[in-house]
Amino acid sequence: MNIVVAQSGGPTCVINASMLGVFLKGRESEKIEKVFGSLNGIEGLINDNLVDLTATLSDEDVEIIRQTPATVLGSCRYKLPDMEKDSAVYEKIVKNMKAHNISAFFYIGGNDSMDTVMKLSKYFGENNLDIRAIGVPKTIDNDLVITDHTPGFGSAAKYVTTTMQEIIRDSSVYSMPAVTIVEIMGRDTGWLTASTSLLRVNGEKAPHLIYLPEREFSVNEFLDDIRELHKKTPSVIVAVSEGVEITDEEFSGDDFRSGKVDNFGHKYIAGIGKALEEIITNKIGCKVRSIELNVMQRCSSHLASLQDIKEAEEVGREAVCLALSGFTGKTLVFNRVSNNPYKVEISSADVSKIANQVKYFPAEWINEKGNNIKDEAIEYFLPLIQGDLEIKKENGLPKHYIIEK
Amino acid sequence: MNIVVAQSGGPTCVINASMLGVFLKGRESEKIEKVFGSLNGIEGLINDNLVDLTATLSDEDVEIIRQTPATVLGSCRYKLPDMEKDSAVYEKIVKNMKAHNISAFFYIGGNDSMDTVMKLSKYFGENNLDIRAIGVPKTIDNDLVITDHTPGFGSAAKYVTTTMQEIIRDSSVYSMPAVTIVEIMGRDTGWLTASTSLLRVNGEKAPHLIYLPEREFSVNEFLDDIRELHKKTPSVIVAVSEGVEITDEEFSGDDFRSGKVDNFGHKYIAGIGKALEEIITNKIGCKVRSIELNVMQRCSSHLASLQDIKEAEEVGREAVCLALSGFTGKTLVFNRVSNNPYKVEISSADVSKIANQVKYFPAEWINEKGNNIKDEAIEYFLPLIQGDLEIKKENGLPKHYIIEK
Repeated sequence: MNIVVAQSGGPTCVINASMLGVFLKGRESEKIEKVFGSLNGIEGLINDNLVDLTATLSDEDVEIIRQTPATVLGSCRYKLPDMEKDSAVYEKIVKNMKAHNISAFFYIGGNDSMDTVMKLSKYFGENNLDIRAIGVPKTIDNDLVITDHTPGFGSAAKYVTTTMQEIIRDSSVYSMPAVTIVEIMGRDTGWLTASTSLLRVNGEKAPHLIYLPEREFSVNEFLDDIRELHKKTPSVIVAVSEGVEITDEEFSGDDFRSGKVDNFGHKYIAGIGKALEEIITNKIGCKVRSIELNVMQRCSSHLASLQDIKEAEEVGREAVCLALSGFTGKTLVFNRVSNNPYKVEISSADVSKIANQVKYFPAEWINEKGNNIKDEAIEYFLPLIQGDLEIKKENGLPKHYIIEK
Repeated sequence: MNIVVAQSGGPTCVINASMLGVFLKGRESEKIEKVFGSLNGIEGLINDNLVDLTATLSDEDVEIIRQTPATVLGSCRYKLPDMEKDSAVYEKIVKNMKAHNISAFFYIGGNDSMDTVMKLSKYFGENNLDIRAIGVPKTIDNDLVITDHTPGFGSAAKYVTTTMQEIIRDSSVYSMPAVTIVEIMGRDTGWLTASTSLLRVNGEKAPHLIYLPEREFSVNEFLDDIRELHKKTPSVIVAVSEGVEITDEEFSGDDFRSGKVDNFGHKYIAGIGKALEEIITNKIGCKVRSIELNVMQRCSSHLASLQDIKEAEEVGREAVCLALSGFTGKTLVFNRVSNNPYKVEISSADVSKIANQVKYFPAEWINEKGNNIKDEAIEYFLPLIQGDLEIKKENGLPKHYIIEK
């Protein structure tokens, strides 16, 4: 039998490690002949755009792919239609799979990809096709339910905390009052922003304020907190999730946050960091800078967590084991056994229980005022950022793998 | 005799290495008893806010300081008044230096700091004081004249190129047309932005367009270039210096770039990256994202260039040698002897010839259209980003040194 692996959704530093897990386990298994890669997610299966990875990838390629960020097989944002409404695309997929003797599909992705796996496994089942669909989790957002954490989160947290620590140094050189706002990814959940609290384990006092989308945000309380902190330290550092919303009537709505209209009459929605920067400039008047960590949070593989890479590869391998054991419509989850020493077990769950659900940052780890994270969260985060991959370089720059498309 | 070292201006990854060079050479010299650190630049000397580094720093501290970004002694933006107009501040400085038996001042900084060194050495000379003032160069902008390059630039270039390469991977996963604009520091000069051209040495085709402040920028030509590139590749990557200005009448001026007015009636000046993002959205309509590398360019010491660190420490040491030989009003410059193997010699120059001057990116290294960098520049950049410091960590995060103030 042959199998196929695809990658979907936004990139992470370890989504390629999961692809390697599927590839390597597939190559090792006597039951599997060829491992195909579907280019640009499920679109490759729909358009018969596949690469025979078994024939393509050398052992050296594998090493380089492990340190390459984003998706070497490309990605997509394609959402499968309901099969009751439109079965044509399902028929295309099945036709192409049959043509290549493929009997298992592995989809590495977040919530939307789990939805695809759920729909495909349902279609395969209802049509009595001997094809399995398995989801391999990834998301820097860490917002999948049931699992302790998600592959990709640890590396993102390591980038965010390491960079935050450097920004703290950079922002603390002058003696005049200043505010530095660091906007961190997370539209619905604040896991990544909350991870900056673990700098405390090394004695850092900043970030002094941490805001997550899970809690209401009050601009006036925020301004009061900054004024209070300025009595103790000139340099106040703020970590804020991109999904935090300004609800104070005085500052919210079109007037403030998106009242800027460009030359063409289009409204421009400023990020929360920039919005808070302007509010502080106007209301406090001190030096203020907002920093958006942007895509570097999900692609800075030179700073990936080795623990994260190992776990990502392992779930890829376990996905193949699941399929070989006859399972379908499943995905992998982590169960944390202990923090110190860190121990995690991998098991499986129905994708239907994970798809389209959101795991929020625990309310009990947020302080009463909603402007910081409790110490209890630190032992959760700390094991996930440990270890470094030894990066292979060429001319002083990390080597990246680029597949021929 | 005792000496004093201070740091000034914007942080770099290696300004602490230069401080260590002064400290270590001072500690080694039999002629020097104590090395003081002046806190927050020249302000520490004005306010008698000094730290006895000889008594404070252990060998382990030295190792940690070498990997700590920004300025462990703090910084300032203080500009010395002309002594003819206001000599009081000079008298304070001399009084405090005499009180601590200090006969040499080392100022690590960029253009403004060289101005301070020039004024101080002139004052000391005209008042027949046996005190020397030596400038130690640093700036990520690489815009000091006479010298081949400046300490701090290599590490910034290494961060910018490594991150650009990761952003290229991240931006290239989807199959639909998109533009990614990366805004890089450099108000007057484009050295740092131009350094992204060295990714070509590893086979990268991006960034496809590179714009420096040294050349006029035309929005309509820019839009045409993107449309042309989209015929060949879905993902177009643009590197642009923050100092690039939009001069096209149609797009320039208050109307477009800073026409946004906030709730308080303040005008908001968008950066060039954000401005171009909006123009592309309106004129081309494809997916577009702008990324500001922000302060990470000057503080990501986890990615510092070892060559840069070594050279920064060496100029600190050489500065002490200059003072011990009786020189004053001098600074250190690099003369490049060869590219391959890379060889550089350190010599000195009068600060008066460097202060308040700007070295622009060479016109002959910019292509005719002004939208890219010629290959000739690559061999200039490449040696400067080589090598990695082995980073000492605690709990998986780099250790930073924080001085007691």
